[in-house]
Amino acid sequence: MKVIKIASQLQKIAFKHLKNGDNIGLVPTMGALHQGHESLILKSKKNDDVTIVSIFVNPVQFGPNEDYLKYPRPIKKDLELCKKNHVDYVFMPTVNEMFPNNYKTFIEVTVLQDIMCGKFRPTHFRGVATVVAKLLNISCACNAYFGIKDFQQLKIIEKMVKDLNFKTKIVPCPIVREKIGLAVSSRNLYLSAQEKETGSKIYKILKEVSIDFKNKSPHILKQSTISKLNKISNIKIDYVDIVNFNDLSSVNKSTKKVVLAVAVWIGKTRLIDNIILAR
Amino acid sequence: MKVIKIASQLQKIAFKHLKNGDNIGLVPTMGALHQGHESLILKSKKNDDVTIVSIFVNPVQFGPNEDYLKYPRPIKKDLELCKKNHVDYVFMPTVNEMFPNNYKTFIEVTVLQDIMCGKFRPTHFRGVATVVAKLLNISCACNAYFGIKDFQQLKIIEKMVKDLNFKTKIVPCPIVREKIGLAVSSRNLYLSAQEKETGSKIYKILKEVSIDFKNKSPHILKQSTISKLNKISNIKIDYVDIVNFNDLSSVNKSTKKVVLAVAVWIGKTRLIDNIILAR
Repeated sequence: MKVIKIASQLQKIAFKHLKNGDNIGLVPTMGALHQGHESLILKSKKNDDVTIVSIFVNPVQFGPNEDYLKYPRPIKKDLELCKKNHVDYVFMPTVNEMFPNNYKTFIEVTVLQDIMCGKFRPTHFRGVATVVAKLLNISCACNAYFGIKDFQQLKIIEKMVKDLNFKTKIVPCPIVREKIGLAVSSRNLYLSAQEKETGSKIYKILKEVSIDFKNKSPHILKQSTISKLNKISNIKIDYVDIVNFNDLSSVNKSTKKVVLAVAVWIGKTRLIDNIILAR
Repeated sequence: MKVIKIASQLQKIAFKHLKNGDNIGLVPTMGALHQGHESLILKSKKNDDVTIVSIFVNPVQFGPNEDYLKYPRPIKKDLELCKKNHVDYVFMPTVNEMFPNNYKTFIEVTVLQDIMCGKFRPTHFRGVATVVAKLLNISCACNAYFGIKDFQQLKIIEKMVKDLNFKTKIVPCPIVREKIGLAVSSRNLYLSAQEKETGSKIYKILKEVSIDFKNKSPHILKQSTISKLNKISNIKIDYVDIVNFNDLSSVNKSTKKVVLAVAVWIGKTRLIDNIILAR
């Protein structure tokens, strides 16, 4: 396993692999790797000849009052997880390598970004789209792996890749959950034992309200999710939304595949989760 | 020579060439090909194993009151010029292929774009950056060739390619001029014989004021260009500007390499030209 910090250096190596006929897989992460990331790595190890994991806490996707500075950075542990899973290259650039002072180019996906998380994190997805475009170019990836937990992020990246004709295939991967049902997330590191216990109720509620989903209107589904979440002390809702699986558009009773997505605060930690429902 | 209209089809072919170890050159054009384009094609034929010419009048880079609809589209002549020069692939997509109705992703280079031509064509460079990014991805280009006549465009594309880590090398190519000194341009087709004669004075003035440039302040250089252009009836100035060759920033008497750039209207036709001056 090789750790690379310079973009041009990785690009040169990746391009050589490409010319050798190797299939390159990219797992873009902000580090603090967990089982969710591990599942993406394993999928790439299965699909691709070469697996690149990028570890970069991207300042451009954090708002001014968000947790950029305190975001966990357990570098040593992260590298161990990569090594254990036979990752070929870890790309670990500095902020200055990715976004030097005179950096000026940004990608905007002008749909999908003003709803759900975008309402609460106005420049977040611009930062995500931009860094992902950079990582796709640097890694020459044939496949790039993203978790479905960040569903809106996944859809925005899929849209960007399609609109800008990137050659990379975006591979969505299922949510990995802790035994108690909580979706694994780097931000779970912020949670106390009691907060984790609270967090475990989110998915329980998503499952509960989804029972008999075919006979419920989206409005009812949303309202009962909200009322159940509101009953839990120490949870503050950012949003509960039901959107079209394909393009996050609004849904009605006949929409075939929908996503019921939530973002909540538990203490000082913001968590997201979702469940995909098909009729 | 193969004419291709579908992006995914060209990308597949180009990627195959890449894997074969071929160097791919891209000459992005809006058609109405002239000696300027031909010089770019010849440069690619010399440098690259495979030369792709794209012909696409990009609606996204035209303002609402600009000449998108009347922009010349002499397809047959264009294809002849490509064939004569042994171009390997001509990419000639429809608008719907490049920008379908639900197209939503745009690239902004948030410097360089509000000055010079950007002042007069506010969304122009966003359209240019976006279409070029698409073409780079579709063509898998190792080299992409751009004329120095569109100097601001060249600098914005260079900045985008650097910021977003595109692997493509941008190759700037010198201005080609008609015998009378007029920079060749697809828009010269709009000019009457008399307007061409008027247009030929632009470069004469740029050369005249540049004599002894080392001893003139940028301000003097700019003012004398303006006053000379103003003396020509039937020329209306959009702007005259002197900027740093490297980044279009403002210059002073000690700036090593500068560009004296103008945009003027002759009748209903907007022409740009420039001269590079080094001390």
